[in-house]
Amino acid sequence: MTIGIGVIGAGVMGADHARTVARHVGGAELVAISDPDESRARAISGEIAGCRPFTDGLELIADPAVEAVLIASPDHTHVGFVLACLGAGKHVLCEKPLAPTSAGCREVLEAERALGRRLIQVGFMRRFDPAYVEMRSVLKRGELGKALLLHCAHRNATAPGFFTPEMSITNAAVHEFDILRWLTGSEIIAVTALNSARKGDGGLRDPLVLLVEMEDGVLADVELFMNAAYGYDIRTELVCENGTVDLGRPAPNLHRRAGTEARSFPSDWRGRFGDAYRLQLQAWLASVRGQEPAGADASDGLAATRVAEAALASLESGRRVEIATDRP
Amino acid sequence: MTIGIGVIGAGVMGADHARTVARHVGGAELVAISDPDESRARAISGEIAGCRPFTDGLELIADPAVEAVLIASPDHTHVGFVLACLGAGKHVLCEKPLAPTSAGCREVLEAERALGRRLIQVGFMRRFDPAYVEMRSVLKRGELGKALLLHCAHRNATAPGFFTPEMSITNAAVHEFDILRWLTGSEIIAVTALNSARKGDGGLRDPLVLLVEMEDGVLADVELFMNAAYGYDIRTELVCENGTVDLGRPAPNLHRRAGTEARSFPSDWRGRFGDAYRLQLQAWLASVRGQEPAGADASDGLAATRVAEAALASLESGRRVEIATDRP
Amino acid sequence: MTIGIGVIGAGVMGADHARTVARHVGGAELVAISDPDESRARAISGEIAGCRPFTDGLELIADPAVEAVLIASPDHTHVGFVLACLGAGKHVLCEKPLAPTSAGCREVLEAERALGRRLIQVGFMRRFDPAYVEMRSVLKRGELGKALLLHCAHRNATAPGFFTPEMSITNAAVHEFDILRWLTGSEIIAVTALNSARKGDGGLRDPLVLLVEMEDGVLADVELFMNAAYGYDIRTELVCENGTVDLGRPAPNLHRRAGTEARSFPSDWRGRFGDAYRLQLQAWLASVRGQEPAGADASDGLAATRVAEAALASLESGRRVEIATDRP
Amino acid sequence: MTIGIGVIGAGVMGADHARTVARHVGGAELVAISDPDESRARAISGEIAGCRPFTDGLELIADPAVEAVLIASPDHTHVGFVLACLGAGKHVLCEKPLAPTSAGCREVLEAERALGRRLIQVGFMRRFDPAYVEMRSVLKRGELGKALLLHCAHRNATAPGFFTPEMSITNAAVHEFDILRWLTGSEIIAVTALNSARKGDGGLRDPLVLLVEMEDGVLADVELFMNAAYGYDIRTELVCENGTVDLGRPAPNLHRRAGTEARSFPSDWRGRFGDAYRLQLQAWLASVRGQEPAGADASDGLAATRVAEAALASLESGRRVEIATDRP
Repeated sequence: MTIGIGVIGAGVMGADHARTVARHVGGAELVAISDPDESRARAISGEIAGCRPFTDGLELIADPAVEAVLIASPDHTHVGFVLACLGAGKHVLCEKPLAPTSAGCREVLEAERALGRRLIQVGFMRRFDPAYVEMRSVLKRGELGKALLLHCAHRNATAPGFFTPEMSITNAAVHEFDILRWLTGSEIIAVTALNSARKGDGGLRDPLVLLVEMEDGVLADVELFMNAAYGYDIRTELVCENGTVDLGRPAPNLHRRAGTEARSFPSDWRGRFGDAYRLQLQAWLASVRGQEPAGADASDGLAATRVAEAALASLESGRRVEIATDRP
Repeated sequence: MTIGIGVIGAGVMGADHARTVARHVGGAELVAISDPDESRARAISGEIAGCRPFTDGLELIADPAVEAVLIASPDHTHVGFVLACLGAGKHVLCEKPLAPTSAGCREVLEAERALGRRLIQVGFMRRFDPAYVEMRSVLKRGELGKALLLHCAHRNATAPGFFTPEMSITNAAVHEFDILRWLTGSEIIAVTALNSARKGDGGLRDPLVLLVEMEDGVLADVELFMNAAYGYDIRTELVCENGTVDLGRPAPNLHRRAGTEARSFPSDWRGRFGDAYRLQLQAWLASVRGQEPAGADASDGLAATRVAEAALASLESGRRVEIATDRP
Repeated sequence: MTIGIGVIGAGVMGADHARTVARHVGGAELVAISDPDESRARAISGEIAGCRPFTDGLELIADPAVEAVLIASPDHTHVGFVLACLGAGKHVLCEKPLAPTSAGCREVLEAERALGRRLIQVGFMRRFDPAYVEMRSVLKRGELGKALLLHCAHRNATAPGFFTPEMSITNAAVHEFDILRWLTGSEIIAVTALNSARKGDGGLRDPLVLLVEMEDGVLADVELFMNAAYGYDIRTELVCENGTVDLGRPAPNLHRRAGTEARSFPSDWRGRFGDAYRLQLQAWLASVRGQEPAGADASDGLAATRVAEAALASLESGRRVEIATDRP
Repeated sequence: MTIGIGVIGAGVMGADHARTVARHVGGAELVAISDPDESRARAISGEIAGCRPFTDGLELIADPAVEAVLIASPDHTHVGFVLACLGAGKHVLCEKPLAPTSAGCREVLEAERALGRRLIQVGFMRRFDPAYVEMRSVLKRGELGKALLLHCAHRNATAPGFFTPEMSITNAAVHEFDILRWLTGSEIIAVTALNSARKGDGGLRDPLVLLVEMEDGVLADVELFMNAAYGYDIRTELVCENGTVDLGRPAPNLHRRAGTEARSFPSDWRGRFGDAYRLQLQAWLASVRGQEPAGADASDGLAATRVAEAALASLESGRRVEIATDRP
């Protein structure tokens, strides 16, 4: 009854997923982890009884003990691993992006369609965050009327040294693109990267503000601030005809001292979305066992990557870039 | 020692100012109020001992008992009354806008310069709101680094039936324009009105989103929502290099009942900015007595009207409109 | 029309009152200030045009220009000055306590009754704080059912060196006693001082917790913490049958920086109750002009002092002390 | 590697534990559930593959597939089942109370001591709630100085019809007693039940206020309000020498509508402590596997029951009741 899970990638994200599989979800067993850097794979496998280390992700996928695969390896390796999972007929939860290019996403999507079976889930974990779930249900119930605007901010305390302006879009903004589509049930039809003052010497274009236009007329302004200094903070206000909703966050204790009353921010995504990652895994396991899939699918992965490509083009050109929809 | 004040206009705003002069500031006496509708003027004068009613604002200005004038009459009458005050050598606090057109503002500004004496204050009362004052001082102290972005929203519960899309700009957005200039110490160089979904049948373009570009690179997104339904709510987040500041508001009691924990919003600006109006009057009286003027002057009035004209042009054309600065 | 006000006492509290009279209320003029330390009286009178300095409060009361008197001198002088005001037939706003002993309060109360005219208001300014006013109106409207419990805390950042345990009661707790009576419309019938751990070496019994029993069965726990270190903070939660109400406070800006999201506390009562003091003066001036008095009267002053005496007795004995009501 | 868990009791609490074991923790399998009402046991076992139903808890304990036992049956059955677990040498997580009487607790404690092996954990799940954990760590780090006071409230939306005043203590207050001991590291030495106004006709003595005195001088006031109407709300403020800490709670979205800004309360403990129950189980499983036990042990279970007995005695007598410590 317990499902054997293999994790590809033993970096920060892969290690986190591996530990969540092993300790914080039911009905699963971590049986394998792979990383080209064998020591990283061994560090995890040594920690978790019954988990074997691999250096080759394709071998992990082929291993009979691995019943379903979680991909947390570098972005450019995603397509190859996902296709191998499809070839092996195994369920796969692939970290975003499904592929760095829309061509890659399309290849994967077509392969899954040819197979005639849904096996791919994309790791847009915010769809499992209780606050986003509640925000979407308010909208669906219609009690505030239709959606008009969304104000979003995605703030990291600090970006790593290798961070590029493009990565604000491919790493951070894609989460916003997916959640905007998911919350409103509408497609993104245009995106514009705006000029603003920059932090420090401005080598990194930070913060970056995007205007996102949805097919149903909803407009979203999205701030992406990778060096916001004060902490990890994800903010969304949904403005409807009869009221607005602010995204909640886990509320730590309130400390009164030294003249102020303060709550702390988490230093990174783990303190904010740890629960969403856990619930995403739980839901994915349920779908592996045959329940209706709940998360983002390959077409959602494609949609997010296409908007990201448009945002990168706008960043380059300084102009509004439209996104053609595939629908006939 | 007590200064005799005359108020022109006995509508909602004028009546409020009259009562504040009479009861909530020191060293002033309401001696006159005028309104073409004599019954409105009499309603106020009957309420306040020592206050005489007028139907003609120019007569009020000329009256010797009136030492300083507060103008709260319809916008198109402002220029004439302000010029009359200058002619009489009397201090004047003029409700915004100083004039509906930049040409009108310029006429007034030049008349004051020709006089060689600063007599005009424009009623941008937010400059006296303790929350904005604190936000500005944070920026001035530099402890959060330089300003990068501002996120603003101006929400009214409901707009009157005669409200037009243009009035979102001339009545509401002008406060945002002035406060953005005052907070950052920088000029607005361009404004863009954006398309978004509209409430109801969309006869009124509501909400309206403006992008405001400042000379120092700061970018502000400004939501103007005249029928936001839930209450009167003014929101500003200042995003700096090392932190952000959210505008506070008077915090009423927290009510826990029926499944929720709630605070109420005021139904209009009186519940939010009553104190700012009072403090503005107090500061204006001090300047009438000879202290350094603290509020917006005629050139600030001109600047706000010029940005409003650009915003109206953008609303019409759908394009970004630049604002030429007068500076050499 | 303008009322001439004399202030007795030019310490921190008297100086604050004098400036509020001069600048922040309408229809009044500060005409006199007295202090045995002439330099203190002159410091204020030099600041405010038309204000004359006195060294003797009785002379100030007798001065014809003084139409109404505000007493902010040391507690033990209150009775003498209040009686002199009654003798002169002048309205008096006396800082709490009306008298340090219930005998003193009773003497004053009887003198006023003999006069047959209400001239005394006691400075329990919280009755004018908008948050307390709203809390009381919730209770009166009955929408939450009847009151059951109150949880109160009175915290000062630091107590002056001369502070004694008794002063926690006579200076701080009296405000709580008055507001409990005023909120609930019920009398206090018993009070118990409880033992708890103490800050520092415990020379000052701080914090002190009092249990207060009301005639209608309502129970209040009151924390008095004179060296709470983090700021000035007054907290009240009213627990009713169907919900609770937390006292709001002016909400300064929210600062996000260095890992936290914080609001500041005022360092003393001026940042919290400045508005209540202003509104109290405004209401008192209205009653001087003949309107229905709105604040605490001499019998309220007596009631608070009687409860304070009981609390001091309980502090001494460690036992519950009952308070006999005068009512037949 | 997976541990086979048996749950005794298939009521609300037992069913919740069973589902958490099956779905939300790693390395465990729900293999058995028992309830005298066979249909309740079958309802759960039918839902979870591999889980067998029992009607007799002792049979469940004896079953070889059951490696560790979770007791969620009626209070009076706890002692028998715990002793059977000890007899079988199996780890047991027993819902509070360990036993309804201190004699029962002592019997169990002595049996465990005789065995020479720690096998018992008591279900005081708050010790795993992240907010309490953080509050305790603040105290341990000493950055706010020593603890002085605690203000606690335990509010349920509604109590079931069969609820008695005693149950406010045995069901609700015991959690407070345990957490006070755990937070401060000090023992409770006396408790006093106070009189207050009551909701409705007062048949149930509700709310109930307890004064709790700790060995180190800390004083806690504890409100127990079983019909607080507005929602499930657990509040704790820890007052230290240099600051205070308010217990956080999961912060749902903020809804602005109809004149207010509101957050909702959960309707019962599941919305507040669901995560604590999950983390408690996870930690218990780790201790079953041999790690250092983290939760409350049998002596903690005894301590809570002894304080509850004292509180019941005080409820009866109206007097302060001391609790003798066992320590030599």
